[in-house]
Amino acid sequence: MERHFDAELNALNERLLDMARLSEESVAMAVKSLKDRSENLAQEVLERETRINLLEIEIDEMGMKLLALRQPVASDLRFITSAMKIGSDLERVGDLAVNIAEVSLDLIKKPPLKPLIDIPRMTEVVQSMVRDALNAFVNRDEKLARAVCERDDEVDLLNDQVFRELLTYMMNDPSTINRAVGLILIGRHLERIADHATNIAEDVIYLVLGKTIKHHIEEIRRESDSKRY
Amino acid sequence: MERHFDAELNALNERLLDMARLSEESVAMAVKSLKDRSENLAQEVLERETRINLLEIEIDEMGMKLLALRQPVASDLRFITSAMKIGSDLERVGDLAVNIAEVSLDLIKKPPLKPLIDIPRMTEVVQSMVRDALNAFVNRDEKLARAVCERDDEVDLLNDQVFRELLTYMMNDPSTINRAVGLILIGRHLERIADHATNIAEDVIYLVLGKTIKHHIEEIRRESDSKRY
Repeated sequence: MERHFDAELNALNERLLDMARLSEESVAMAVKSLKDRSENLAQEVLERETRINLLEIEIDEMGMKLLALRQPVASDLRFITSAMKIGSDLERVGDLAVNIAEVSLDLIKKPPLKPLIDIPRMTEVVQSMVRDALNAFVNRDEKLARAVCERDDEVDLLNDQVFRELLTYMMNDPSTINRAVGLILIGRHLERIADHATNIAEDVIYLVLGKTIKHHIEEIRRESDSKRY
Repeated sequence: MERHFDAELNALNERLLDMARLSEESVAMAVKSLKDRSENLAQEVLERETRINLLEIEIDEMGMKLLALRQPVASDLRFITSAMKIGSDLERVGDLAVNIAEVSLDLIKKPPLKPLIDIPRMTEVVQSMVRDALNAFVNRDEKLARAVCERDDEVDLLNDQVFRELLTYMMNDPSTINRAVGLILIGRHLERIADHATNIAEDVIYLVLGKTIKHHIEEIRRESDSKRY
């Protein structure tokens, strides 16, 4: 029975990794659809969303079943409830990828405003954060989780840079406003994806250390945030 | 022991209602700080966040304790895991209120762009959604939960209206761009708060009906969303 339980926990891990891979790829595809001006790629992001949503349901049901049948305690209990929370975060990452694809579908109908440099760079950082947060979870790797939290500031700075640059475009030429606002929204969506990766990493630290470091980290983040808006 | 368990479930309900009230009020205060140009009120929103964060930790710990000690099954199990998920949603509502307050602190340093009409209206709808979603949860009221999901479209329409109106301001006078983008971000934050209220309402429908209506509703929402971006 113990070995059976381990196998079930492993299956839950596998599903979470699948879901993370799918949602992280969707984010990359959504930004690539804009860079390559590919309507097909953006449509594919919309279609993939159902698969991500189904994985969340599956993870939820696996978690509930394990809680009901195995009645785990201590670290196994915390692991399963964390897995269910991480499922919600990944589902929202999938939603945000869809939001980016929707903006992209609108923007690729119009002439490009500028070559995309910072947004693809932000996307790479954000992708690696989602990937590492999940690896930190399955390997209970607190150090990797902390590194994810730290990279959140990098994303915030890049997003600030994107925002300020687009403001100057709009100021100099009002005909760019509609497109610039679209790019600002994409920057915001990427920033929120980084926030979800950070949430996951904080859950990992909590899982490993068993204390509520989460809001402590948030305080620190808030302090650095309040210097800008 | 059964009666003890009921008392514990009630205590969990109470905590969630406290948290919902605090976060819903923070949203109202953040928007009011902008309308009344009150830096103090905006600062108060930042300070209240710690209390909201502590409530999430408390709800999480109550849930974990109940899962470990009572080993509930079926609807009680689903109730407790839903409560923990709702705690995460409410914590993010608190975060978004802080984001609004941060934009407000920036905007009240500058002359007002226009009288605020749609944003306060959106705020009222969003507040009522958070409130009703929680009432639907504690009373297991599926009908009320469905009404919350329906109001999400109203918020999306209002946000669209805000967005389009601000675009015309920016087009006509580039000196308004910085302030207009601030208001667009506030509209987005309110829209996201409505999304969290909708998530909670979907959890309630799932809790009552015991089936995964959640992503079915999301599909419908997505269809209406794809008509705009």
